[in-house]
Amino acid sequence: MQILQTPAEMQEHARALKRSGRVIGLVPTMGFLHAGHVSLMRLARAQCDELVVSLFVNPPQFGPAEDLDAYPRDFKQDEALCRQAGVDAVFYPKAADMYAADASVWIDEDVLSGGLCGAARPGHFRGVCTVVAKLFNLVLPDLAVFGEKDAQQLRIIERMVRDLNFPVQVVRGPMVREPDGLAMSSRNKYLSERQRKDALVLRQALDHAGQLVGQGERCVRVVRDAMIAMIEKIPGTAVDYIDLVDDQSLAPVDRVERAVLVAVAVKIGAIRLIDNDVLNV
Amino acid sequence: MQILQTPAEMQEHARALKRSGRVIGLVPTMGFLHAGHVSLMRLARAQCDELVVSLFVNPPQFGPAEDLDAYPRDFKQDEALCRQAGVDAVFYPKAADMYAADASVWIDEDVLSGGLCGAARPGHFRGVCTVVAKLFNLVLPDLAVFGEKDAQQLRIIERMVRDLNFPVQVVRGPMVREPDGLAMSSRNKYLSERQRKDALVLRQALDHAGQLVGQGERCVRVVRDAMIAMIEKIPGTAVDYIDLVDDQSLAPVDRVERAVLVAVAVKIGAIRLIDNDVLNV
Repeated sequence: MQILQTPAEMQEHARALKRSGRVIGLVPTMGFLHAGHVSLMRLARAQCDELVVSLFVNPPQFGPAEDLDAYPRDFKQDEALCRQAGVDAVFYPKAADMYAADASVWIDEDVLSGGLCGAARPGHFRGVCTVVAKLFNLVLPDLAVFGEKDAQQLRIIERMVRDLNFPVQVVRGPMVREPDGLAMSSRNKYLSERQRKDALVLRQALDHAGQLVGQGERCVRVVRDAMIAMIEKIPGTAVDYIDLVDDQSLAPVDRVERAVLVAVAVKIGAIRLIDNDVLNV
Repeated sequence: MQILQTPAEMQEHARALKRSGRVIGLVPTMGFLHAGHVSLMRLARAQCDELVVSLFVNPPQFGPAEDLDAYPRDFKQDEALCRQAGVDAVFYPKAADMYAADASVWIDEDVLSGGLCGAARPGHFRGVCTVVAKLFNLVLPDLAVFGEKDAQQLRIIERMVRDLNFPVQVVRGPMVREPDGLAMSSRNKYLSERQRKDALVLRQALDHAGQLVGQGERCVRVVRDAMIAMIEKIPGTAVDYIDLVDDQSLAPVDRVERAVLVAVAVKIGAIRLIDNDVLNV
């Protein structure tokens, strides 16, 4: 397994692979890999000749008050996991090599980014789109896998690939959960034992929404209020957002009448967790 | 010479060329080709195996009050010129195939775009950056040639390639002028005989600036005022802007103490023409 540390090295390597006709798969990550990432690698591995995993905690997608410095990192463990997963090359660049001090070109998505995490984290998706475009240009993948855990991000990346005509197939990676239902996240390690139990309420609230809709409830306000009540009765939790939006356009809906994305972001103490589900009626 | 009319066809063709190891050169144009474009093609031709010329009048780079509909078009003549220049493929897409009705992803350059044509044409460089990125992703060029006539555009594209890591070498194509000094432009054909003569004042004002600086003048205000006076003494002309800026950062300068880009935009009647020169001291 090769470890490539500079953008120039990565791009040169990728160009050589392309010239030899190899199919390149990319799994972009911020490192601190868990079983969720490994499932994305497995998906990519099955569809490519050369599997590249990027490990890069991308500063521009973090707000000034967010957890950039505290974001967990463990290169040695990530390296070992990549080796086990049959990764061919790890791209592990430094932020100073990825962004010039006078960087001034950014990619903006103007419609899908407005709500959900975009409303709570201004500038977040500008940072995400820009780094993903950079990774596409450096790794030259034929396909790239993004997890359904980050539902809004996934749809924005698909939109970017369409609107900018990137020659990349976006593959959706299904959510991976702990046995008790908690969505896998690098941030889970910050939860205390108590908080780890409280965090199950995200999944429970999503299940409850599914049950209500299954029983015929169509009014979004009713479903949403029931979810909020369920979450906020637990001390130390605070709803950041709970939104039911059209699964394609991410526009808010009043009634559940076609595929609806239910997305939740909840603070368990200081730790912000997200989860989501798609309800089909 | 192949003519490719849809983005999908173009990208498929480019991918096949890449797999066979061919070096692709791109000259992006808005069509209505003249000797300036031909010189860019010649530059590209010498450095690639497969020369692609795009002919596309890009709606997003035109403001609501600008000349999108009136912009001159002549596909038959462009086709003939491309054939003579040894072009391998012409990419000639429809706007509706290039932009989805709900397109929402755009590329913004936040520093170099603020002044010069960017100040006079808000949104112009968002349109330019976005279409050039799309063309890069569809044509997959190893190198792309942009003319020095559009000095600000050239520097912004170079910045975009750097900041987004496009695997493309940007080649600067020197300005081409009519024998009397007028910079080649598709818009020149709209000039009356009288205006055609008046338009020479752009080049004359740039020459005058060069002479002043050559004689030791360093004060930008003095140089600029002399240029404005020269242009505005001609009836029917109006200065849109005359700016002396740092050749790298495009930041305004007060004194000519290193390489300075002198950029002018002048309306001759209703026709807006641009020209520029770099003064080295």
